[in-house]
Amino acid sequence: MAGSSFGKIFRITTWGESHGPALGCVIDGCPAGVELSESDIQPFLDRRKPGNAAVATARKESDICEILSGVYEGRTTGTPISVMIRNSNQHSGDYDELKDVFRPGHADMTFDAKYGIRDHRGGGRSSGRETAARVIAGAVASKVLSQLGIKVEAYTRSIGPVESDLSDYSRSAVLANATAMPDINANARALEYIADLKTKCDSCGGVMECIISGVPAGVGDPVFDKLDALLAHAAMSIGAVKAVEIGDGVLAASSTGSRNNDSFKALQSGRIVKRTNHSGGILGGISDSSDIRVRCSVKPTPSIAREQKTVTKDGENTVIAIKGRHDPVIVPRAVVVLESMCAITVLDAMLNGMSSRIDNLVTIYKK
Amino acid sequence: MAGSSFGKIFRITTWGESHGPALGCVIDGCPAGVELSESDIQPFLDRRKPGNAAVATARKESDICEILSGVYEGRTTGTPISVMIRNSNQHSGDYDELKDVFRPGHADMTFDAKYGIRDHRGGGRSSGRETAARVIAGAVASKVLSQLGIKVEAYTRSIGPVESDLSDYSRSAVLANATAMPDINANARALEYIADLKTKCDSCGGVMECIISGVPAGVGDPVFDKLDALLAHAAMSIGAVKAVEIGDGVLAASSTGSRNNDSFKALQSGRIVKRTNHSGGILGGISDSSDIRVRCSVKPTPSIAREQKTVTKDGENTVIAIKGRHDPVIVPRAVVVLESMCAITVLDAMLNGMSSRIDNLVTIYKK
Amino acid sequence: MAGSSFGKIFRITTWGESHGPALGCVIDGCPAGVELSESDIQPFLDRRKPGNAAVATARKESDICEILSGVYEGRTTGTPISVMIRNSNQHSGDYDELKDVFRPGHADMTFDAKYGIRDHRGGGRSSGRETAARVIAGAVASKVLSQLGIKVEAYTRSIGPVESDLSDYSRSAVLANATAMPDINANARALEYIADLKTKCDSCGGVMECIISGVPAGVGDPVFDKLDALLAHAAMSIGAVKAVEIGDGVLAASSTGSRNNDSFKALQSGRIVKRTNHSGGILGGISDSSDIRVRCSVKPTPSIAREQKTVTKDGENTVIAIKGRHDPVIVPRAVVVLESMCAITVLDAMLNGMSSRIDNLVTIYKK
Amino acid sequence: MAGSSFGKIFRITTWGESHGPALGCVIDGCPAGVELSESDIQPFLDRRKPGNAAVATARKESDICEILSGVYEGRTTGTPISVMIRNSNQHSGDYDELKDVFRPGHADMTFDAKYGIRDHRGGGRSSGRETAARVIAGAVASKVLSQLGIKVEAYTRSIGPVESDLSDYSRSAVLANATAMPDINANARALEYIADLKTKCDSCGGVMECIISGVPAGVGDPVFDKLDALLAHAAMSIGAVKAVEIGDGVLAASSTGSRNNDSFKALQSGRIVKRTNHSGGILGGISDSSDIRVRCSVKPTPSIAREQKTVTKDGENTVIAIKGRHDPVIVPRAVVVLESMCAITVLDAMLNGMSSRIDNLVTIYKK
Repeated sequence: MAGSSFGKIFRITTWGESHGPALGCVIDGCPAGVELSESDIQPFLDRRKPGNAAVATARKESDICEILSGVYEGRTTGTPISVMIRNSNQHSGDYDELKDVFRPGHADMTFDAKYGIRDHRGGGRSSGRETAARVIAGAVASKVLSQLGIKVEAYTRSIGPVESDLSDYSRSAVLANATAMPDINANARALEYIADLKTKCDSCGGVMECIISGVPAGVGDPVFDKLDALLAHAAMSIGAVKAVEIGDGVLAASSTGSRNNDSFKALQSGRIVKRTNHSGGILGGISDSSDIRVRCSVKPTPSIAREQKTVTKDGENTVIAIKGRHDPVIVPRAVVVLESMCAITVLDAMLNGMSSRIDNLVTIYKK
Repeated sequence: MAGSSFGKIFRITTWGESHGPALGCVIDGCPAGVELSESDIQPFLDRRKPGNAAVATARKESDICEILSGVYEGRTTGTPISVMIRNSNQHSGDYDELKDVFRPGHADMTFDAKYGIRDHRGGGRSSGRETAARVIAGAVASKVLSQLGIKVEAYTRSIGPVESDLSDYSRSAVLANATAMPDINANARALEYIADLKTKCDSCGGVMECIISGVPAGVGDPVFDKLDALLAHAAMSIGAVKAVEIGDGVLAASSTGSRNNDSFKALQSGRIVKRTNHSGGILGGISDSSDIRVRCSVKPTPSIAREQKTVTKDGENTVIAIKGRHDPVIVPRAVVVLESMCAITVLDAMLNGMSSRIDNLVTIYKK
Repeated sequence: MAGSSFGKIFRITTWGESHGPALGCVIDGCPAGVELSESDIQPFLDRRKPGNAAVATARKESDICEILSGVYEGRTTGTPISVMIRNSNQHSGDYDELKDVFRPGHADMTFDAKYGIRDHRGGGRSSGRETAARVIAGAVASKVLSQLGIKVEAYTRSIGPVESDLSDYSRSAVLANATAMPDINANARALEYIADLKTKCDSCGGVMECIISGVPAGVGDPVFDKLDALLAHAAMSIGAVKAVEIGDGVLAASSTGSRNNDSFKALQSGRIVKRTNHSGGILGGISDSSDIRVRCSVKPTPSIAREQKTVTKDGENTVIAIKGRHDPVIVPRAVVVLESMCAITVLDAMLNGMSSRIDNLVTIYKK
Repeated sequence: MAGSSFGKIFRITTWGESHGPALGCVIDGCPAGVELSESDIQPFLDRRKPGNAAVATARKESDICEILSGVYEGRTTGTPISVMIRNSNQHSGDYDELKDVFRPGHADMTFDAKYGIRDHRGGGRSSGRETAARVIAGAVASKVLSQLGIKVEAYTRSIGPVESDLSDYSRSAVLANATAMPDINANARALEYIADLKTKCDSCGGVMECIISGVPAGVGDPVFDKLDALLAHAAMSIGAVKAVEIGDGVLAASSTGSRNNDSFKALQSGRIVKRTNHSGGILGGISDSSDIRVRCSVKPTPSIAREQKTVTKDGENTVIAIKGRHDPVIVPRAVVVLESMCAITVLDAMLNGMSSRIDNLVTIYKK
């Protein structure tokens, strides 16, 4: 209940502080029989890793993962999958002067209010580093979903004022560009924008979007656990996300029923599809077989080298300029985190939905 | 797990279909000793009730609630509070022709895909009528929060293109205006806009916002159960909500760190406050003692009298024009639902957070 | 979290006090498509009903149930099934003198310590009357299990010193005998024993046992949610149960490995069975396809007309002799409650286990 | 939901197979501010460790634990506490011939039925080795409880036919005796009994009991999460436990109300106590301030060197004699596991119960 677990059947628990000895994830409830090894997980971690000096911190995080349980002879056994990353290259010294000062835009003050004690080194538990553990689980969930023909792909939609041109979407560009934008021109302009901000000791935010394709109609629950509500929960739990939109999102508010409704049509095959997808693949909280679209607005990195007014733990007014290595924008590295949270959420909803009909129960148990 | 429950300690379970015999809510985990009667709940239900012909359906829903358990001699006993509303005035006949046709923008198709059976009358379980049960729980949560000096107030921020002028916010205007806007001029213009849409057999959406004030710093959990993540879950679970924003929301994406960070200052009293509130009262998932701001974009009502293309349950292409009584915009009635979901979420997080420190445990058990 | 819910997927929530206006149960997560009506539930409630003057209270509890949601045209829809029983024939006056006195063996003192307030009438929420709501859910679970060929049958094994002869087990005798014993002679002797105790203003306990047959191998989870652990939780949650045994139970402690191990054999069909069933149908927390045997020891009814020493709410020593209508032994009426809790537990474990293999996921979603 | 987690607020998740690289436990929800280091945990692990050749396997399990997160400068921070034990001295080769054969009395067959794949080495996830992870959490829970003046102590009550004389209970004897019996004579006789069984290639079971003292009245929930129901769940989830009794347990069934009821008396201080403790410290599912007594019957170790009939995975009849190092009785090592599960359960119930009254909420949040 302290909130380090997510999901009901495919249930993940993350642990670890930014500058502690290690961090990790325990995945309970992964179906047995799925081929899995570290090589399925490492590429996800690598996408989250800093490295490109233009957009990310110069910290070297090797982030080598080790599977400690739940896999036998290359397959999941249905028992908890524990995966760990040892921390290294910790410049804890960088944080000594932050021990008693609350950084604006960070969780320092609120952790102190809640717990009365905190590991201040690198943000401790509130560090973005915790998301490495989510990405582990996301890699596993994506592997399972791939066996059902489901793809989960996220990308950077905008950085500050620079927007991608989605008419020319290319997955390989997303993976190749330092910004994780699908558009080579936007990537270049965004890098320039970021470079300029760095000279001003400032930072920026952006928008990222995830498309989940191949989910059959009928996934998600009505009422509180609507698939969009679960996705909103998942996405908003990523630090720095300040808004979550499904389908047309905020634009829906200024549309009209006649424009916003997606009319249905029946294909020759008998399959029912929508002519448009304003809904973003979800109707009444349940998937409608169109692509599911989740969009997140991410705030600017709060760690900036510019001087800011703040207070100490003991209530003294002071100023702070945050040194150390910090991402001028976190969106490019957060894209794989969004992808991971979406994969975990959709897989969990699918596992959960297996019992929605008595026919399914008979199919599984009377075979 | 079928998703009709919400909350962990203050845990609510709703039940009931639009045109079934009754609907209701069971609240488990409400602290004992709170004064409570039907008169605390009825005003919340009345705000959700249709009635103003300009903005809402002409259905008469009396929505008289009855407390069936959990209250003894005017106080909560700590045992489940069951509250029921008998349905009446059901024009089930209105829905006969919808039995085998999927309405665009509704959950008809997706329910059918999930369950293979559905109560089509008035949308059955997917009807907005389910929110009456949430409002019951919201009224109880609000009552508890009021004893801690916490206020939860929502209002309509915009309807279609008409925006409220918040510089002149008045709670009594929110409660008096048919649109639940805090601004008398905007209310008038919105009513005109809606009247015009009705003549065109069309509908519109809008934006609603909730302000939660008085929450001390330290409420909410880091990681997955961040207070903003729980609020996003809660708000997105309200039918027709397509986007949830916290604080500056989507605008944060195009801001910079130096503008978006809220600097701290220490008051004479030693209390630490923020000079601005871009964060919307939450930092790192934990309340920072500023007002918590939650904003929702609501899609246009999908039920419109205009002819739309669609399909039958059996996969035949057809057209539909939806008759019956429908709200041309649901925002005004949804405002109290948002307020309710926010109250439930914050109270639950506070109950959950009581155990965050060993000192608290000692205080309660060694007294 | 206040503990009025049970189960994870087939999740039930009960509510109501002994002498409040009504009591009921909400079942969330029942698979769609199951034929269900009040006539499936009423026979379970009737078995729980007092009536036989020899063994039960003379209270007339009609216990007529009403399904308020979740069933449409005679079938479950997958949405919450809410079932209510209106209370009647409440002799609240009988309890007036108990308002401020703690009855020995009852929860009066502990409720007061926990909540600081309680509905004392008829025991309020701690009354055995709450089990009527469990029996509603048990009837529904049994109906679902019957479609998988699974039977759940409980009976009285002993009352005080009188033991049933199980060599002559007959289900119809269980249903016909006032004691719910499967043996007509034991029934007669038990009734004599009870009659004698009543003249002495005393009460007695007994043992009840439930046999669950037809569960395939592979149901239940390893570690904390072993099927036997869930059954122990379920059974021990029935008021007055003081011991739960699985299979040979307490006798296993004095056995040896060579005698206690059940050896396997392969049938012609390839099916693997056990030659004996000391394990009671569960190995390592997972069903082994043998009959599951759950046995409960039930304490004597604490309400006795004999004078007992006790204290008032305000800490004064006093004496009490409990008047009113009370069962001299509760085992016969508790048998259907045990049956219900076992049915709910096994069904929930089966729904939960559907996702244990990737093959099952592919079967359900790629059909 | 795959059952590797236990508890609601103090929530533990265990992971790891007997012969995998490591095993561990993640504790989420431990209150912040508790002094904690490996030296609090190691003594618990040492008590569980095999070593005494007379009663336990000759395996050398060093079981050195490492805290990986959640503790900063010697105190818990409120974030997840991850503790790991690297496995060593794994004689996996011992298990090669068990790969395709189902051992009687073990979970081999049932794991195979559930998952279709299993790590057979040393029993994999179903090995008693998993309990090392529970003991880690138990040590932490005990540390927290000690700050509230609560003690949790378990011991061996009987081994096979040899019963301890409890009139002479000594905690130091429990810790010193190889059998964990509190009685030096019984210990000697039990060791003889075990030695004799070993010569016969056989094994035995026994009874263990846990006393929890110092719990104030008012802990636990009515209905499904009665404190005794949670303890039964916890205790029955320990492999090999076949019966759980609370207080007088099975003896209550043959008692009478007049003998079984514990009458109350008021002390000079105003405190209300019971004159006897047949109830085992719990009334109506809620603690009554007397000692809580939980008793478990443990089946004989199923691994015996004697030849037994069984089947292969492919359904061939065969015989098996289990080689390797196995405990002739597991009770002595299970005592600290029972203690751990009881500590976890009581602490979690106490954390959960903090919110039972509005007064408590006001105390914590309006200070």
